[in-house]
Amino acid sequence: MNLLSSTEAFSLSALSLACVGVVANTFQGDGEPVIASLAFSGLAFASSYSMIRWLGPVFMNAGLKGRDMSKLKRTEIPESLGAVCALIYLLTIIVFIPFPFYKDIVAATSGGGNRDISVSEDHQISGRSLHRFPHSKLATYLSAVLSLQSVVILGIGDDLFDIRWRHKFFIPAFASIPVLIVYFVDYGVTNVVVPMQLEPYLGQMVDLGWLYYTYMAAIAIFCPNSINILAGINGIEVSQSIVIGCLLLLNDLLSLYAAPSSPNPHPATDPHYFSIYLVLPFLGVSLALWSHNWYPAKVFVGDTYCYFAGMVFAIVGILGHFSKTLLLLFIPQIINFVYSAPQLFHVIPCPRHRLPRFNARTGLLEPSTTQWQRPPRKSAALLLNLLAGLPVALIKLEKNNLGEIVESTNLTILNLWLVWFGPMREDKLAIGILLMQLSCGLFGLFVRHELALLVFRQDNRQ
Amino acid sequence: MNLLSSTEAFSLSALSLACVGVVANTFQGDGEPVIASLAFSGLAFASSYSMIRWLGPVFMNAGLKGRDMSKLKRTEIPESLGAVCALIYLLTIIVFIPFPFYKDIVAATSGGGNRDISVSEDHQISGRSLHRFPHSKLATYLSAVLSLQSVVILGIGDDLFDIRWRHKFFIPAFASIPVLIVYFVDYGVTNVVVPMQLEPYLGQMVDLGWLYYTYMAAIAIFCPNSINILAGINGIEVSQSIVIGCLLLLNDLLSLYAAPSSPNPHPATDPHYFSIYLVLPFLGVSLALWSHNWYPAKVFVGDTYCYFAGMVFAIVGILGHFSKTLLLLFIPQIINFVYSAPQLFHVIPCPRHRLPRFNARTGLLEPSTTQWQRPPRKSAALLLNLLAGLPVALIKLEKNNLGEIVESTNLTILNLWLVWFGPMREDKLAIGILLMQLSCGLFGLFVRHELALLVFRQDNRQ
Repeated sequence: MNLLSSTEAFSLSALSLACVGVVANTFQGDGEPVIASLAFSGLAFASSYSMIRWLGPVFMNAGLKGRDMSKLKRTEIPESLGAVCALIYLLTIIVFIPFPFYKDIVAATSGGGNRDISVSEDHQISGRSLHRFPHSKLATYLSAVLSLQSVVILGIGDDLFDIRWRHKFFIPAFASIPVLIVYFVDYGVTNVVVPMQLEPYLGQMVDLGWLYYTYMAAIAIFCPNSINILAGINGIEVSQSIVIGCLLLLNDLLSLYAAPSSPNPHPATDPHYFSIYLVLPFLGVSLALWSHNWYPAKVFVGDTYCYFAGMVFAIVGILGHFSKTLLLLFIPQIINFVYSAPQLFHVIPCPRHRLPRFNARTGLLEPSTTQWQRPPRKSAALLLNLLAGLPVALIKLEKNNLGEIVESTNLTILNLWLVWFGPMREDKLAIGILLMQLSCGLFGLFVRHELALLVFRQDNRQ
Repeated sequence: MNLLSSTEAFSLSALSLACVGVVANTFQGDGEPVIASLAFSGLAFASSYSMIRWLGPVFMNAGLKGRDMSKLKRTEIPESLGAVCALIYLLTIIVFIPFPFYKDIVAATSGGGNRDISVSEDHQISGRSLHRFPHSKLATYLSAVLSLQSVVILGIGDDLFDIRWRHKFFIPAFASIPVLIVYFVDYGVTNVVVPMQLEPYLGQMVDLGWLYYTYMAAIAIFCPNSINILAGINGIEVSQSIVIGCLLLLNDLLSLYAAPSSPNPHPATDPHYFSIYLVLPFLGVSLALWSHNWYPAKVFVGDTYCYFAGMVFAIVGILGHFSKTLLLLFIPQIINFVYSAPQLFHVIPCPRHRLPRFNARTGLLEPSTTQWQRPPRKSAALLLNLLAGLPVALIKLEKNNLGEIVESTNLTILNLWLVWFGPMREDKLAIGILLMQLSCGLFGLFVRHELALLVFRQDNRQ
């Protein structure tokens, strides 16, 4: 059961061989990093797919397993397999390092693509001293890898030791330290462009100083945690990450398309290539995980995957200087976070798990609820009644004869979706949420690329 | 029991406060990275010391525990606490990143230590573009952190899943990929100086090409694994690492001392500062671990620590271009590896554990042995008899009436030491081995700094 079928083995081998061929071929020209990245992503997909299958039993033996609560037969399946994807991803982007810089290496050593030229005595002792080599880009890339690796280490620690929620909330903050420090050392721009409407008061640009670092840290904390709390049904964590990843790629293409072959490249093209190099292999490993985690799930992804996925997006947004655009792709996550806030901050009691409840009789998911042993305090009752009384109800309440609240649905958009559209099967729910994610994201990109000129003086594309 | 005593708490707090003060003070001048590194090492010591104490029970609960076989009461104690030290070390060297570059940041932004100057419009959009900033040094530093983090991730995987010996042997090779790739991208020197005696045949320098990368990978594989096999008694893994770390510091001081204040610094000073920045915090966390792991041990270090320690040394040696000097500090490990080879490569059967045997009656350690159910094959018997028949016996054999070998001591220098000097208490054995390590290392440095001119045309010091 845990071996690959012969069809799978054959397809994966063929894919891998083709990818190796493509990678080898990129050495003929200028390195063609985007093509190489695509091929590496194919390799990452193939190896993640096989490793997830092979390592499942190993993880079960090591105690990394859980029961699927939303199935009739609650069989145990391996947990935390996202860690495997994250490690394969890290190895991929590390091995990829020479490719974006291949052109620079060749240019700096011989100018003609031939590296076997004689070198000066001086070079032999002190190294290449490539004056035209973009060392600062390399440092940026390395800091990104370092932050991702940090979040993976901390995520694995969380999967193993079950860290408390209020501690693990800050895991991404720790992991973002390398990126922030290299940003400080190497770049240090803390100015933001001011919307035209505010220019009379603030000027064209405003220097946020250390506030900008706080803002970046907040992005790094928000993205991973927001994915981690929009979770609980088969495939939702991976699928939302895949949708966001695809939208990021679309954003990169839209931004690059406007400056297709200008001789003096716009400074904003580099970050978008950088984003492509990080997102493509992410999609590779995520698709492999998706095919095992989609309904009915054969493995669980674990917290490591959520942190890792969110951190990829945060880093791409921070280092690519499009963190505002990034937030436009996180609209459902932002809504879910705001909507969850009363429970997250314990205004309303928060049970350990808030995932929808599986009704064994119908086989469908229903909104899960919090039971009120005692009627809620006045302030909480007011909030609950307000949410329930809106034209579109944002919560479903059960009251007893006295009009006291005895039960209220949990505040996640998964439950809200079920309140609005009624009980449905697990995969239907996931597809609904994903379509909403996709629509919000496309709308966000439309706002970014078409409507931004209403607010900002100039677009990066110009 | 797992809380800090009030004396400990007080001393550690005082130390931490002092270190924070020193770090804050370095901002007054040019950043003084060596002083800052020393202070960070103090902080790393204090936090490792407390975290090891606090996390012991957590690790036991998570199943990370083992029995001390060389004690009368074989109580269970927490295992793999070296991983905690490694993580604190990583955090320390990440937070330390700005310090070695502080001078460059200040110089590039204002030239006078004041960072609040007005900046040009161009800078606001495209970043600082610090032309004088040593980006390549930053990239090198980051690649070192990345490799260390990789080895820690893989080490934790090993501690959790008990990877097979023939697989885990290559863990450091994977982890060295970032350093090797950045070396390739950023530096690319593959020439080695030829000993004078060979110059007529090879010229003054010889370009090893890709062989040089193989050599560096071999160093990266050897150092961690050689520490991992010189193990098995309380404190030996940490102590040998501390001795090697101190010798590396001594080597740095000897190398820097010769060029104290030349206006145009020799290219070889940078790697030695780099080495100091990596080794000082290593000593900080190791001393904290040592105080818990020395006889009688209250925690075990785990494989993670051995890999991590070996990798620190390998990286310092590789990126500092003194890998040959490094090997002079690993003489006991090299001897142990060569001596163990017949068992490691299964010429002679190798039991799962080869640590010395504890004699409960005397409380002393005795050489552990391999029992031969059947007499050894001819070739093995020849080897065993040869080792036993040397003027200084390298093995102890038990024979039956027929002259067939029925028992032979295991081939580790710990057992050999016990063969030579008789049974002794665990800590006596550790001290003996460490004194040998120290003497060999000091001799090695003497050879490097005084005798090298017999073989090489010029010393780095000149």
